[in-house]
Amino acid sequence: MRIVVPVFDGFTSLDAVGPYEVLRMLPGAELVFAARSAAPVTDDAGWLTVVPTATFDDIVSADVLLVPGGPGARRNLDNAALLDWMRRVHATTTWTTSVCTGSLLLGAAGLLDGLAATTHWSEVARLESFGAAYTEQRVVEQPGGIITAAGVSAGIDMALRLAELIEGPVAAQAFQLAIEYDPQPPFDAGSPAKAPQEAKDYLAAR
Amino acid sequence: MRIVVPVFDGFTSLDAVGPYEVLRMLPGAELVFAARSAAPVTDDAGWLTVVPTATFDDIVSADVLLVPGGPGARRNLDNAALLDWMRRVHATTTWTTSVCTGSLLLGAAGLLDGLAATTHWSEVARLESFGAAYTEQRVVEQPGGIITAAGVSAGIDMALRLAELIEGPVAAQAFQLAIEYDPQPPFDAGSPAKAPQEAKDYLAAR
Repeated sequence: MRIVVPVFDGFTSLDAVGPYEVLRMLPGAELVFAARSAAPVTDDAGWLTVVPTATFDDIVSADVLLVPGGPGARRNLDNAALLDWMRRVHATTTWTTSVCTGSLLLGAAGLLDGLAATTHWSEVARLESFGAAYTEQRVVEQPGGIITAAGVSAGIDMALRLAELIEGPVAAQAFQLAIEYDPQPPFDAGSPAKAPQEAKDYLAAR
Repeated sequence: MRIVVPVFDGFTSLDAVGPYEVLRMLPGAELVFAARSAAPVTDDAGWLTVVPTATFDDIVSADVLLVPGGPGARRNLDNAALLDWMRRVHATTTWTTSVCTGSLLLGAAGLLDGLAATTHWSEVARLESFGAAYTEQRVVEQPGGIITAAGVSAGIDMALRLAELIEGPVAAQAFQLAIEYDPQPPFDAGSPAKAPQEAKDYLAAR
């Protein structure tokens, strides 16, 4: 069960680490953080640097491909080498997945054409520019094993669903218990429909 | 606003990265991943390796100290150098916080004696061995700026509360919207009280 997470400068850490923390518990899981080279990769905030465990050239197949988003994803939408690698690995996967704007990379690779998909709420138009039909759900499953998750933290929900698909509902619930995922945010502002206008204005002004 | 996250071999990645993804949005935030040396540090699963941005010796003060947990936290409960460093930095902080079994390190450092606190549900007895009164809440706030969070994913909820305390409710809601934290897990099994027995048995057998 090889689960490959491509990382690139400017990725969003939680997009990758949220689902990682769930999927690593799958029996026989081998988690791979793959990058262009062996050089460390720094996230979008600039504070978190991870050491890849493989290069793209090392990886010719995967059971699960999990593509994180972030400003770095947007900067790679015309990176032919990355997109070609994604297409080649996708041809071998059982599940090809994304978190947040990772779906834009799937779209740019031509993997979402004619499919329903989701992304971060701020990037709906760009997602649709790749021929995907934006669907306002936390996790969107499509034929062919393509699953996209909404923004950042949605990767945790997606990973639990993926664990259910791969290992069954008991395992998925065990993993949820292991990470004590009993969410109790102090506010209910996690989507544009729920957040107050002042919070949207604060974000827009950053 | 310097936010210092100590990392050590065997830490749980999501304990650190969940709150990191929220707190990095605080105005003027400087996030520091501090370790014993400049050498990369590998998490409990063995797949994720991060490059520290400072050594413990570099860091003599912080506004926020955020201590992650994991098997590596338990292995450091008698690490006098680490505990002494934590005490010295704590003396300078406004907020000293932990996620999951990071609270055991706070306890071992003597910072929880006589206080209410929480931890991962599996480590309640060990937490109480340090003189803390276990409190079954997702986030426990105490006088002196000490805040502990329950297991792994609870760090996200704690970080949103901390953002509210530091920057106010509008900012906290903006950060929640930015990471689209509108949790919709496919199951309701995130605590021992909610998880079915089969899931607990599955976890115990791993």
